[in-house]
Amino acid sequence: MRCSTVVHRGVTHAAIVTEDGFSLQPEASLTDLLADDGWAERDPRDGELVDARDVELAQLAQPSKVICIGLNYRAHILEMGRDLPEYPTLFAKYPDALCSAYADIARPSNSDRLDWESELCIVIGRESHNVDRESALGHVAGYTVGNDISMRDWQHRTLQWFQGKNLEAATPIGDTLVTGDEIDHAADLRLTTTVDGEVMQDARTSDLVFGPAELVAYVSSVTRLRPGDIIMSGTPGGVGASRNPPRFLEAGSVVEVALEGVATCRNRIV
Amino acid sequence: MRCSTVVHRGVTHAAIVTEDGFSLQPEASLTDLLADDGWAERDPRDGELVDARDVELAQLAQPSKVICIGLNYRAHILEMGRDLPEYPTLFAKYPDALCSAYADIARPSNSDRLDWESELCIVIGRESHNVDRESALGHVAGYTVGNDISMRDWQHRTLQWFQGKNLEAATPIGDTLVTGDEIDHAADLRLTTTVDGEVMQDARTSDLVFGPAELVAYVSSVTRLRPGDIIMSGTPGGVGASRNPPRFLEAGSVVEVALEGVATCRNRIV
Repeated sequence: MRCSTVVHRGVTHAAIVTEDGFSLQPEASLTDLLADDGWAERDPRDGELVDARDVELAQLAQPSKVICIGLNYRAHILEMGRDLPEYPTLFAKYPDALCSAYADIARPSNSDRLDWESELCIVIGRESHNVDRESALGHVAGYTVGNDISMRDWQHRTLQWFQGKNLEAATPIGDTLVTGDEIDHAADLRLTTTVDGEVMQDARTSDLVFGPAELVAYVSSVTRLRPGDIIMSGTPGGVGASRNPPRFLEAGSVVEVALEGVATCRNRIV
Repeated sequence: MRCSTVVHRGVTHAAIVTEDGFSLQPEASLTDLLADDGWAERDPRDGELVDARDVELAQLAQPSKVICIGLNYRAHILEMGRDLPEYPTLFAKYPDALCSAYADIARPSNSDRLDWESELCIVIGRESHNVDRESALGHVAGYTVGNDISMRDWQHRTLQWFQGKNLEAATPIGDTLVTGDEIDHAADLRLTTTVDGEVMQDARTSDLVFGPAELVAYVSSVTRLRPGDIIMSGTPGGVGASRNPPRFLEAGSVVEVALEGVATCRNRIV
């Protein structure tokens, strides 16, 4: 099953993706849809069927928490000369950092090191606290892509990354959630970033040190997760700050992140 | 003016502190009260006056964001041999880490390094984004105390502190908010911690590197703050992890933090 949040005739709906459009659901957002335990069994024919040309895509989810993971792609960690970590690195992004998949992103006047980070996003489907690894995938609603746009200058002002990771309306989240059964729980999908058409990141989710089951179990041991909450699972090598010479996003740049067969974000920096 | 959140006959109210009790306000929490621009001009005689013996104190606020500051007491930074920081260190605590001022705190079975951190808490009174330093204090509703209970083992598993700072229902917040006019915006108040009656931290807020005006301005340049949101402004020297030998909270310990003339938290570890 594939789901989105769409605007139809000025009203925002959770929606199930159909062959040529959407089945509108009564809930105002995917987050509200996921709060219904039976959402995955809904029959798209029970909703109002609308053509894809008659809707606009809205921000996929309105989570209460966005938990980000650092340093999680094996090849990138090893090429940096580091050891593989024993525990995932967690930090928080407040939900008003999010934006929709195709929104323009305003380059802040007080940062000149705006960087990209394509990430597999895990969307939580049911309340999760101290979930064990074996049942963790049952707590996942599905997967999408995201771009953890980071202000590297602010991120490295202090040891804690928070202030480089919370630029308002600057973390695009993919327009579609895909349930785990369709994509083997994102075990081996291609994840790419292009800037103005040039490939900057190109990796596979099979290279994750901590995959979805481990992350849901671990994060839920730290903080309670609720339907619609998002775990951004970390980014592979190829970010702008670690290129030689470094490269950052400028006004007019178009940055695109894509998770194979799942979703895309394409955003212009303005 | 002093405000609390109280339960009276099973109903939770924002309340103004009076000479011998409280004036109940129609809002269900201090957070809702602060959303009314005119809250500070309310006359306590307009609310239902109840005796202090007839209410229970509830958790003071239900913020959308709790922003914590690291390394902010001058004497402690210098005694650690560090330079004074150019920028405040920020990290996030999700609101469900909070608890009320006198709640029992459950010691987690998977941490044996549970530590205290008394802190001056700044409660935001109006939406704040990119506020300048000169007008910042006008965005503060008032002040209280808090105890940023930390799991040092989890905090230092990775470079990011998040996972040691988000234990559910384990960050007590004082029972009373005091407006800035009564206490000179907390410019020079005594802040103490005792564990089982023994003084562990004893400092003055005049030793803060970044005071309330700087913090509101800086934090609001990173993330939007809303009425009821809390900035926990950092802790002075004397935490358990830096004692010789280190000392941590155990089941049965009673930890008390107090901000002179403002509020207290007293919590038993269970």
